[in-house]
Amino acid sequence: MSDYQPRIQDMQFVLSNVLGAPDQLKALPAFDEVDADLMQQVLEEAGKFVGEVVAPLNRDGDEIGAHWQDGKVTMPPGFQSAYQMFWQAGWPALSAAPEDGGQGLPSVLEIMLYEMLSAANHGWTMAPGLLHGAYECIKHYASPSLQETYLSKVGTGEWLATMCLTEPHAGSDLGLSRTKATPQADGRYALNGTKIFISGGEHDLTDNIVHLVLARLPDAPPGPKGLSLFLVPKFYPNGERSAVHCDRIEEKMGLHGSPTCVMRFDDALAEIIGEPGKGLNAMFVMMNAARLHVAMQGIGLLDAAWQKADAYARERRQMRAPAGQEVKPKSAAEADFIIEHPAIQRILNTQRAWVDGGRVLAYQTAVELDRIKHADKDTAAQSQRWCALVTPVMKAAFTHQAFHGGSDCLQVLGGHGYVREWGIEQIVRDARVAMIYEGTNEIQAIDLVVRKIMADGGQSLNQLLDDMKAQSQIETAEATQLRKLTQSIVSAAPQDPSLGHRVADDYLRAMALVMLQWAWLRIDATLNAQTPELKSRWQAPSKAFRQWVLPEFAMRSHIIETQCQAA
Amino acid sequence: MSDYQPRIQDMQFVLSNVLGAPDQLKALPAFDEVDADLMQQVLEEAGKFVGEVVAPLNRDGDEIGAHWQDGKVTMPPGFQSAYQMFWQAGWPALSAAPEDGGQGLPSVLEIMLYEMLSAANHGWTMAPGLLHGAYECIKHYASPSLQETYLSKVGTGEWLATMCLTEPHAGSDLGLSRTKATPQADGRYALNGTKIFISGGEHDLTDNIVHLVLARLPDAPPGPKGLSLFLVPKFYPNGERSAVHCDRIEEKMGLHGSPTCVMRFDDALAEIIGEPGKGLNAMFVMMNAARLHVAMQGIGLLDAAWQKADAYARERRQMRAPAGQEVKPKSAAEADFIIEHPAIQRILNTQRAWVDGGRVLAYQTAVELDRIKHADKDTAAQSQRWCALVTPVMKAAFTHQAFHGGSDCLQVLGGHGYVREWGIEQIVRDARVAMIYEGTNEIQAIDLVVRKIMADGGQSLNQLLDDMKAQSQIETAEATQLRKLTQSIVSAAPQDPSLGHRVADDYLRAMALVMLQWAWLRIDATLNAQTPELKSRWQAPSKAFRQWVLPEFAMRSHIIETQCQAA
Repeated sequence: MSDYQPRIQDMQFVLSNVLGAPDQLKALPAFDEVDADLMQQVLEEAGKFVGEVVAPLNRDGDEIGAHWQDGKVTMPPGFQSAYQMFWQAGWPALSAAPEDGGQGLPSVLEIMLYEMLSAANHGWTMAPGLLHGAYECIKHYASPSLQETYLSKVGTGEWLATMCLTEPHAGSDLGLSRTKATPQADGRYALNGTKIFISGGEHDLTDNIVHLVLARLPDAPPGPKGLSLFLVPKFYPNGERSAVHCDRIEEKMGLHGSPTCVMRFDDALAEIIGEPGKGLNAMFVMMNAARLHVAMQGIGLLDAAWQKADAYARERRQMRAPAGQEVKPKSAAEADFIIEHPAIQRILNTQRAWVDGGRVLAYQTAVELDRIKHADKDTAAQSQRWCALVTPVMKAAFTHQAFHGGSDCLQVLGGHGYVREWGIEQIVRDARVAMIYEGTNEIQAIDLVVRKIMADGGQSLNQLLDDMKAQSQIETAEATQLRKLTQSIVSAAPQDPSLGHRVADDYLRAMALVMLQWAWLRIDATLNAQTPELKSRWQAPSKAFRQWVLPEFAMRSHIIETQCQAA
Repeated sequence: MSDYQPRIQDMQFVLSNVLGAPDQLKALPAFDEVDADLMQQVLEEAGKFVGEVVAPLNRDGDEIGAHWQDGKVTMPPGFQSAYQMFWQAGWPALSAAPEDGGQGLPSVLEIMLYEMLSAANHGWTMAPGLLHGAYECIKHYASPSLQETYLSKVGTGEWLATMCLTEPHAGSDLGLSRTKATPQADGRYALNGTKIFISGGEHDLTDNIVHLVLARLPDAPPGPKGLSLFLVPKFYPNGERSAVHCDRIEEKMGLHGSPTCVMRFDDALAEIIGEPGKGLNAMFVMMNAARLHVAMQGIGLLDAAWQKADAYARERRQMRAPAGQEVKPKSAAEADFIIEHPAIQRILNTQRAWVDGGRVLAYQTAVELDRIKHADKDTAAQSQRWCALVTPVMKAAFTHQAFHGGSDCLQVLGGHGYVREWGIEQIVRDARVAMIYEGTNEIQAIDLVVRKIMADGGQSLNQLLDDMKAQSQIETAEATQLRKLTQSIVSAAPQDPSLGHRVADDYLRAMALVMLQWAWLRIDATLNAQTPELKSRWQAPSKAFRQWVLPEFAMRSHIIETQCQAA
């Protein structure tokens, strides 16, 4: 079965026809030279690179994987040369600032690039995926001399970067971290400790690797406020090797193309980034962008699984399908294509509904990220609200869907789906990790409900729904019900301190469905102007969304109401 | 993290306290010497064997796996000796007839044994799991001379057996099979063709392997009615090797401890079982038992995943949990055990609700299987109805839950869940296949709705619900609604030939929830008599069922109603 291939036309339709993103962006002075043609050209080139260079390496990435020996990590065949082509062609720096060697293009192009890359080869994509956060972190917090050495190297992707956060006893709870930073006479710090789950902690893709490390100064208080951020490269500018060691890589369920490293810091000399005790602030500044990247992995992987299931369903014949409401003449073959069976149609159209609706939300979120950077203050505040509320929903809902909906796509292939040669079981295994990293999906839900929705008594949620109503020109019954649910939670919470935590997962799902409904209203509104063929392409998932996906909203609503009444 | 260990006390509670199974069985003349003590003794011995011998082999089964070379398959380390101990101790013949070398014990003990075996080591368990169907098939359809040679060898498990059904172009649709059977002068048949996905087609566990093969006689009509069943062993009684070849084994997502073979029949001399053209009948006779076995894999694997998640949640501290409605003093440690976090409690109690409720339904179904064999005609007919309707629901719902709920359990371990050393990701990978084999879950739903519920206008469904009401002394709103939904489907179907297929998955889920609700009513009814400790053990999942699981019923009901209205 052939590798994933980007379908630029579908992505373009969402970007331009549904969202009018080129015009939205043109309104920002930073992008006054960006137009629809330029964006299309970039996407087509990106699609070509992904389809021709990155996608064919996916299978070896899984089956051969990354290998550790004596502290060194060898990447799977072809990974290094593909990465060298990738950064030299300027892809990692697509949306980086021109003064740092970047192209200064809109974030949405970067986000669409990463959707395609993740769909094609999740393991390979982990490597460049991490440099964007590191670039922003260095750009906003590092001293001028550190920037001089590292900013453009990381911004262009010539050097890759890591985020060294997790420790064996401190997974989601970074405040428990124990890695120590001891000040040295020369103003540097000696790092000592062990970090685990470090993606790309060691590899042979680039000449150097830049590690950003959370550690604790000697006089630091316990908990998250005692953490500072440090930078230590694999090789210092003078060529000397640092005392950062990769002790082993993990054996994982999937994602074998990305080495997950145990990193030991053994008096590793590092420089501080930003102020002491403000380490987490520097990390959190890039959190929305990083979470959106993970959401794109979800959308991309689900699309990749869908492509395989759709292709299989169009060539495999099994049994007779029941006559549809329009009775059609049966083929002379012994059996019908399985795409004619209602159970298969339901799976394919439902997952299509998630991918297409997800694109609307994700691409719009990327536009909002650019508005935060480049628009006037009021617009930026509105965009900040969108990103704060929508990003955790996207991260959790689409990584969930990539795994569970990806499994549904696997089901279309029957026994062949369970066998490696068809490639779809790899997608399901690879996708599973995205529900865990960058904050587990349960933590996304608590972030949304407890830290954001409840923190301002539901005010920003109501404003978000107002903004959405202004754009779709309608408020659905579900959106109105979400307002009511929010009010119920806010009212009942003071008597019941765990209420927010108990309803968090259901609330996030309910909100995801309201967002997806809005996305499909936006798509539906563009269809009248389209050809019959294009209409039927988009109407099938639209109907599937209403029939099979949206009914979950009432269930979530019922669960939340019951919990509020029990408060 | 330690291997799965059977918890006999929990299983016994369902068997004796909730279902009163020993008394139910004692009423059958065949089991008048079986009592609660004997059953408990057998279960404790079984639990010991599973925990001490089979469970420790699970990890090597996955990591080393079965290996093919030059037509021979080497099983993972320890598999052969464990299997030899297993059959020599009489475990495969637990419920086989005494005249065939069996122990003549109730099926429910066999079912509980396989729940534990699957939980401990799904791959290893595939080998003996297949002999039960082959034994029944030979017992009911083979000629006296074939029985003389094979019945007790297969019944005792001294020789293992396969079911050779699937062909490359014919997965779920057996009617498309092309393997040919050509009559020979000596009354035997020469088989020619290739079968795929043959579990245990070749291995080194036993001296001989008995293949049951679906094939087509020269004058046979196309489709399922042209299929006959044949028996061909790896070695004939005279020691000669048959022309049955294992050409390769599949690389799979999981279940590496069970070789999935491509079997080539190259003029392989075989004997017919039963009448020409009646091959599928012989297969279908054992379908309910085989599907229940697969449902037990689901229950067992979910329990194994739950055990790992529960153990992890009791020893891992991360962050502060919100105060509960009863405010309790916080520990002096830096963070709380994650089992105190509402999101974790929800996962654990929800999956517990599926396992415990599933046991009630599964053990009762096993009792009904024995009633079909041993009870008077009216009782047997009632039991037949239970098995026909409940078995596809169990197979689909519990294999679904093992994968998706197993993934939820994995989530409790965070990043450690994704890493091999903790063993839970193997459970998720292994579990995935059970949604596909023995009839995909979509086919179970069509079997239930189209072939069983709609075929008699909903009559047997109503009778089943009457029987359930008689036992739980209450009919819930959901059960009544299921009757109404059934009537709506039956009424609308004549105008809409695909309606049954469109609502099949939702109907199966709705029925699963009604069954599970009944199971929990049965459990709840026994709790008043229990100690406070035991009460709280069972009340937590009972509450989780009502809070988090049952609300799906209304969603499914809504979807079905909408489809009926659109008919």
